[in-house]
Amino acid sequence: MKREIGAEAIIFPTPVLIVGTYNEDGRPNAMNVAWGGICGSEPPAISIAIRKERKTYENICRSKVFTVNIPNEKLMEVADFFGIASGKEIDKFKYAGVTAKKAGHIDAPYIEEFPVCAECRLIKTTEIGKHVIFIGEIVNVLADDSVVGEKGIIDVEKVGAIGFDPAGNYYTATGQKVGKAFSAGLEILKQAKEK
Amino acid sequence: MKREIGAEAIIFPTPVLIVGTYNEDGRPNAMNVAWGGICGSEPPAISIAIRKERKTYENICRSKVFTVNIPNEKLMEVADFFGIASGKEIDKFKYAGVTAKKAGHIDAPYIEEFPVCAECRLIKTTEIGKHVIFIGEIVNVLADDSVVGEKGIIDVEKVGAIGFDPAGNYYTATGQKVGKAFSAGLEILKQAKEK
Repeated sequence: MKREIGAEAIIFPTPVLIVGTYNEDGRPNAMNVAWGGICGSEPPAISIAIRKERKTYENICRSKVFTVNIPNEKLMEVADFFGIASGKEIDKFKYAGVTAKKAGHIDAPYIEEFPVCAECRLIKTTEIGKHVIFIGEIVNVLADDSVVGEKGIIDVEKVGAIGFDPAGNYYTATGQKVGKAFSAGLEILKQAKEK
Repeated sequence: MKREIGAEAIIFPTPVLIVGTYNEDGRPNAMNVAWGGICGSEPPAISIAIRKERKTYENICRSKVFTVNIPNEKLMEVADFFGIASGKEIDKFKYAGVTAKKAGHIDAPYIEEFPVCAECRLIKTTEIGKHVIFIGEIVNVLADDSVVGEKGIIDVEKVGAIGFDPAGNYYTATGQKVGKAFSAGLEILKQAKEK
């Protein structure tokens, strides 16, 4: 039996995306965004939803570039800090205990200790209610040597990314492989085609 | 050390969203979308990226409504089948072994066996390369009684949703709680405010 929960922003999982930008004075800033995700593959693109009062909103409007950094479980406290502290009040990198480095392809900072980072160039902006949705073309993905597996492919279990649970406000583990995509459903497809 | 992976559509985790619509003849259809996520909270909104050649693209253009159903690990094969079969060739619900029911708030089908479903009304459409991005306002969330915990809040561990790994094409488990959001970083924030 299904129960009505109401009009809530709930799906599972949502990602924990740490968005890196430079302030107008060149200092790095980062914020925690759960409302976002891949939104295209030709070109590869990512969307992030940000409120206008955020420092990151100003920074992306000015610079038209940003990075999206993926935390692992060990960096959960840092990721959460980037979400609950305001870049307008606090120089977050002074206290976060992680290192901002300039990305190679765009003028935005990535976080050295985070296992994966997407470098993004703004290609479209739209608004939904109180959120501005920035859509960035992914011009490069950076991955730590330690999370790259065979054939140069990033290994999801080695990344050990965390997800955000928008119903109960928990972080969750997301890395454990349970099946192969484009393959798990082949038996059902075979049966459908035989009939 | 970071390695360059190139311009790829990669973040972790991405969700497995099964989008439900009715065909023009009233039969239910469903497809598997990994490029999507929550994109606003006032109003609650979700974005899904779909190519124009998909049956679901036609259906949403016509009906302006869709559901987003969240599979758990037990339903992984069904979720994958919805992704690798084409709604233009196969009546997917005839073979998937799950039940399409009409949603209460919109004229679109949800999947009874899936633990969570968002009922969505189309409010905006945009394009990024080969993908059309449909943005739907979430007008209601349905949750199975079995996944609703204390105080009527959905329990992420009971949902047991799966994620999609766009680097290696695996499905991953996503339900295990590892920390509390808006709380895990409080100690760092306290230190920052003291200095």
